[in-house]
Amino acid sequence: MKQESLISKKITNICLVVMLLVFSFMAEAQRRPSKIISPEVLSDNSVIFRIYAPNAKDVKVVGTWNRRFAPDLMVKKDTLWEVKVGPIPSDMYEYDIILDGIPMIDPLNKAVTRDGPYIQSRLMVPGGLGDIIDVKPVPHGDLKAVWYDSPTVGDSQRRMFIYTPPGYDKSNKKYPVMYLLHGGGGDEEVWINRGRANYIMDNLIASGKAEPMIVVITNGDVNNIGSVLDRPAFQQKKDNTGIGAMAAGVFEKSLVKDVIPYIESNYRVIADADHRAITGYSMGGFHTQNTTNDNPTMFKYIGVMSMGLWSAARNDPNFDKAGYVTKLKALQAAKPKVYWIGMGTDDFLYKSCVELRKVYDEIGFKYIYRENIGNHDWNSWRLYLTEFAPLCFK
Amino acid sequence: MKQESLISKKITNICLVVMLLVFSFMAEAQRRPSKIISPEVLSDNSVIFRIYAPNAKDVKVVGTWNRRFAPDLMVKKDTLWEVKVGPIPSDMYEYDIILDGIPMIDPLNKAVTRDGPYIQSRLMVPGGLGDIIDVKPVPHGDLKAVWYDSPTVGDSQRRMFIYTPPGYDKSNKKYPVMYLLHGGGGDEEVWINRGRANYIMDNLIASGKAEPMIVVITNGDVNNIGSVLDRPAFQQKKDNTGIGAMAAGVFEKSLVKDVIPYIESNYRVIADADHRAITGYSMGGFHTQNTTNDNPTMFKYIGVMSMGLWSAARNDPNFDKAGYVTKLKALQAAKPKVYWIGMGTDDFLYKSCVELRKVYDEIGFKYIYRENIGNHDWNSWRLYLTEFAPLCFK
Repeated sequence: MKQESLISKKITNICLVVMLLVFSFMAEAQRRPSKIISPEVLSDNSVIFRIYAPNAKDVKVVGTWNRRFAPDLMVKKDTLWEVKVGPIPSDMYEYDIILDGIPMIDPLNKAVTRDGPYIQSRLMVPGGLGDIIDVKPVPHGDLKAVWYDSPTVGDSQRRMFIYTPPGYDKSNKKYPVMYLLHGGGGDEEVWINRGRANYIMDNLIASGKAEPMIVVITNGDVNNIGSVLDRPAFQQKKDNTGIGAMAAGVFEKSLVKDVIPYIESNYRVIADADHRAITGYSMGGFHTQNTTNDNPTMFKYIGVMSMGLWSAARNDPNFDKAGYVTKLKALQAAKPKVYWIGMGTDDFLYKSCVELRKVYDEIGFKYIYRENIGNHDWNSWRLYLTEFAPLCFK
Repeated sequence: MKQESLISKKITNICLVVMLLVFSFMAEAQRRPSKIISPEVLSDNSVIFRIYAPNAKDVKVVGTWNRRFAPDLMVKKDTLWEVKVGPIPSDMYEYDIILDGIPMIDPLNKAVTRDGPYIQSRLMVPGGLGDIIDVKPVPHGDLKAVWYDSPTVGDSQRRMFIYTPPGYDKSNKKYPVMYLLHGGGGDEEVWINRGRANYIMDNLIASGKAEPMIVVITNGDVNNIGSVLDRPAFQQKKDNTGIGAMAAGVFEKSLVKDVIPYIESNYRVIADADHRAITGYSMGGFHTQNTTNDNPTMFKYIGVMSMGLWSAARNDPNFDKAGYVTKLKALQAAKPKVYWIGMGTDDFLYKSCVELRKVYDEIGFKYIYRENIGNHDWNSWRLYLTEFAPLCFK
């Protein structure tokens, strides 16, 4: 009798599940045909992508595993398109499916990340760098989205993320701080969402590679108070005017005048140059250069990712080299402990970085130069974080 | 001369912007044709959707503004498809574009939200309920993703969000707490991402409609330690077995034994029943019922959203009504101050809620019943939060 009641319970449970699925199916207009998996990562780290598209004529995948953006063409099998790619080196990648010329996220993949307008599907490939980027069974730091007063930008409140390392809330210890900046078109969310900074830090700290530290992830786009879902839907300021406003020097001032004082008065930090690091990619690398050139005694750990000499990138004939060198010499005199430059071989800013290093070399300014086979993309920036963070505060 | 240099600077800046855009264009395979806007909200709150799809044969929009999921057919104009919908009542909506039978996000809309596997584009329509859901120029509470020990579920750490109201960090005040639960297939992120709970609370608190409170947003899916991007990419536990495991009673125990003690020992809360609220939709409504039926003296504010009598939904012939009523009478004896039920006219669980109210009415159990013209979807759940939260702690 009891057995029967259990079986009956199971059957009615199954009925309800079916009901809920049918409902979802209605709502989602056959978004997820059953039992099809995409992406499927095989044991040798090759990957099969699949999409149900009976009426399509031309379907392909474009992912960051191919630095030249060469598409992987999918082949139709009945109503399903499929392609096997790789083996692919362990890492995290972004990809689009291009369906008759229209890029879309992979409808079978729940893992989607965004950087600015670029909403793409995520692929994780395990066994190496991918494992440093993934969520692992190690202690996790907490991550807080806070709103701080920002008189320098002119917004009453702006949003940023603060990562506190595992154990922060249960100790009285003071911690060093890394300020982590994003590139053009981005916002405070992209180092979390696509950059995986909190999980990278968890893994680096757990393995003893990086010191426990607070990581502050700001929004360098002074046109917006927060990321896409964290600002008014109908805003006054122009959206994504991006590079121009981001390069106008306001964010760097706000970092020094608004952000750092907020952190140092609200968190248990060691508030001196020896315990401050700053790094960022692309426009965030430019912000890093400006901030440290203008505040030479503020940071002892400096990381410039995928950025060269801005004036060289812009072919600026009016580059004030003498002024630049004067600032650089002040920074040199302040003796940063680590000045790190990361650049990918295929980066469109590669040459501007050659120019940057020339200026540094001319005055004997010391730096670590790391060149990877890579592009101006998140594969480089996540890699750089795994390499720069371990150099800090040691 | 200075003027010239400024103009030259502007020109080179523009060149760099163009360069970066070209680069993005390459990377994104013409994802965003210039100057086309979608969705465009007109002054009368009608909305134009557009998509560049020169080769498509059949394009439509399906959005939650239509409770029956009737598609709005798009019309081809040259290479562009377009449709004007509405005027639509002020609210937030989710929608898909269906391109030759394949649902996709709107490539021109950066605002994308997720609930379980359902990744959809967001539409905001201003001037009413939409304004309570949107980010407004009011003080914002902070939002922290924390990892807590979860021995009851058997995971060493699980993830949840904690909203602290504006001013929390700068006061010594103790606050009441609302526990906010999600539905089947969801996770701790969905009340943030799609539910906008933190911004709804900001706006309700700023307007004086709701008391300042802490809101704790848990993950009711015991198969997963965190949301899609916040758990291992390759996990042992089965993904999204969903309803079955979520209905097994483990989460409710963990809420009482793991979550509430964590909150009450780590936050400044008033730790009594008068200052505890619990609410959730769908499966979270079921979790709410179970938690309060099993712990009758724990919460004085109880909200059941879009859920009826589980046994009625399941047509369970073995429903132990006597046992259910015994528990309910204990809850009745504990005198909850608010017991609120919200149900949409088109909800597939509507009848099960009629059955629930029958049982309550039979024993004279008092509740507030709110029926809206709506469905089993986020339009109901966001609305319910705006109505239930103001009833708490008053």
